Amino acid sequence: MKEIPSYADVLEAAERIKPFTNRTPVFKSKWYNHQAEAELFFKCENFQKVGAFKFRGACNAVFTLNDHEANRGIVTHSSGNHAQAVALAARTKGYQATIIMPKNAPSVKVRAVKEYGAKILFCEPTIEARKEMTYQFIEETNAHFIHPYNHPMVIAGQGTVAKEFLDEIPDLDIIIAPVGGGGLISGTCITAKQIKPSIRVIGCEPELADDAYRSLKEGTIQPVLRTDTIADGLRTSLGDVTFTIMKEYLDDLVTVSEKSITREMRSVWERMKIIIEPSSAVPLAACMDQKFEVKGKKIGVILTGGNVDLDKLPWI
Amino acid sequence: MKEIPSYADVLEAAERIKPFTNRTPVFKSKWYNHQAEAELFFKCENFQKVGAFKFRGACNAVFTLNDHEANRGIVTHSSGNHAQAVALAARTKGYQATIIMPKNAPSVKVRAVKEYGAKILFCEPTIEARKEMTYQFIEETNAHFIHPYNHPMVIAGQGTVAKEFLDEIPDLDIIIAPVGGGGLISGTCITAKQIKPSIRVIGCEPELADDAYRSLKEGTIQPVLRTDTIADGLRTSLGDVTFTIMKEYLDDLVTVSEKSITREMRSVWERMKIIIEPSSAVPLAACMDQKFEVKGKKIGVILTGGNVDLDKLPWI
Repeated sequence: MKEIPSYADVLEAAERIKPFTNRTPVFKSKWYNHQAEAELFFKCENFQKVGAFKFRGACNAVFTLNDHEANRGIVTHSSGNHAQAVALAARTKGYQATIIMPKNAPSVKVRAVKEYGAKILFCEPTIEARKEMTYQFIEETNAHFIHPYNHPMVIAGQGTVAKEFLDEIPDLDIIIAPVGGGGLISGTCITAKQIKPSIRVIGCEPELADDAYRSLKEGTIQPVLRTDTIADGLRTSLGDVTFTIMKEYLDDLVTVSEKSITREMRSVWERMKIIIEPSSAVPLAACMDQKFEVKGKKIGVILTGGNVDLDKLPWI
Repeated sequence: MKEIPSYADVLEAAERIKPFTNRTPVFKSKWYNHQAEAELFFKCENFQKVGAFKFRGACNAVFTLNDHEANRGIVTHSSGNHAQAVALAARTKGYQATIIMPKNAPSVKVRAVKEYGAKILFCEPTIEARKEMTYQFIEETNAHFIHPYNHPMVIAGQGTVAKEFLDEIPDLDIIIAPVGGGGLISGTCITAKQIKPSIRVIGCEPELADDAYRSLKEGTIQPVLRTDTIADGLRTSLGDVTFTIMKEYLDDLVTVSEKSITREMRSVWERMKIIIEPSSAVPLAACMDQKFEVKGKKIGVILTGGNVDLDKLPWI
């Protein structure tokens, strides 16, 4: 078992990453308030660097390495936002990052990682091949591995989203976020429960990737069974650190349909004129489908990112 | 010839519409600054009510009517943002608005106008039929006509964009905006030249709708010859009021290709994570294609709106 991060770690993370991250704005929408009969606040991490909250955790994890550790190299495996996040975080400090990516990764994502100066190693497009190549790389180079979520400093970094959110809107009744590997929701739990113990923290998952729901029900980590949800950021299973935190703090975990995810993604584009990726629409779908007590509440919605393939929109 | 609005009219408009409009944010983009070798500021009127700057002018024109005038009814013809803008502005004051729309108008736009409580009269889909039905309606009802751009109070309302922009970023060297009927660029000229006489105001048009370019060259208002630019907000000819203002104040007018418009529209979606409509991409395209002296300058770009049919994107 790895170390569980504390709220003090979140506060240190906030100071550490502040000069390098965007303090993202909180948006409101009269239309959504009217529809939900509640007051919604949207923390726009789609405006974060690399287009997703992932940059916070990656920065914190990379910046806590001392030069000696970092100079051995930094490695991670990801085909998504974490890859770009680690690449940019490493470049910010002048370290060399290596990203293991599946060889069928979208060219736009490969290009982005290259733009941030990271080295890419391509592997077969399976989770096993990815892990195998990563372990082999660590064995050979002694590089430091930045896990995408099951890493205390990554979780502490993600906790800075909730800190900024509650600093700006202190009287939220509920805070909702999507659950993939659980890094964001864990950081949110640690932070929000410390700042406002009465707040409810609710995790949201696609029905097609309901592993966290099943894990909490069974009491042991359950694998993701399918990888076909359009919420491509949420196709991962929990880790032991994130699962431990979620078991202790999370108030509820709800699931939503693919149809609702697509509907709310499109609706945010149309009504709020901002680009969010499918994963970001998951908590909002839970809210609009009244999967928890919504009416009359002040609800903080974390919009996690805005990296979308504009050639392949789910409604076209 | 109608009255030319003054900067005092803009100041009055700013006070008049302030409680009802959004003070839209100014965004920056490191990526764009790097690409352009300049410092760009984006005034996000896509976040304005009804999704476009048009609400400012419509509000100002509607709110300057006295109850006696307004109770005779308000009418306009438009299939675009001006229709929604007048509908919402009228509803805000409890007045009845009638919008003449072509019977082939997109159902999403018809629905939006209805949502704002306006009455719709459908006409044949030609400019002549629209005008004919509008004049007939005015004849019968004595309703007040709110022209989409050739109206001093509409122009004064649009001038509030530049006022807010320069209040926030006083040292802009250049301010750029698209030119359709000329309402926004005229309001921008009157305001920007008063606040900062040394500023350059540059209008931008699609090559396929270069009527303002030809009008300024010829010295008389020239008609739009084609209506197939993707910048659907810019398919209109100038009016006598807007042309008079542009002749006096405008520093330059440049044109851009359809390809550049689509490229920059997509690029803003991808890099800045905000939805802009094709018309909004026109000034940015002029900037990135170096259609005027860009390097080293502080450039204010007015992003005019974000109303896009998400089923029909120009790159798909």
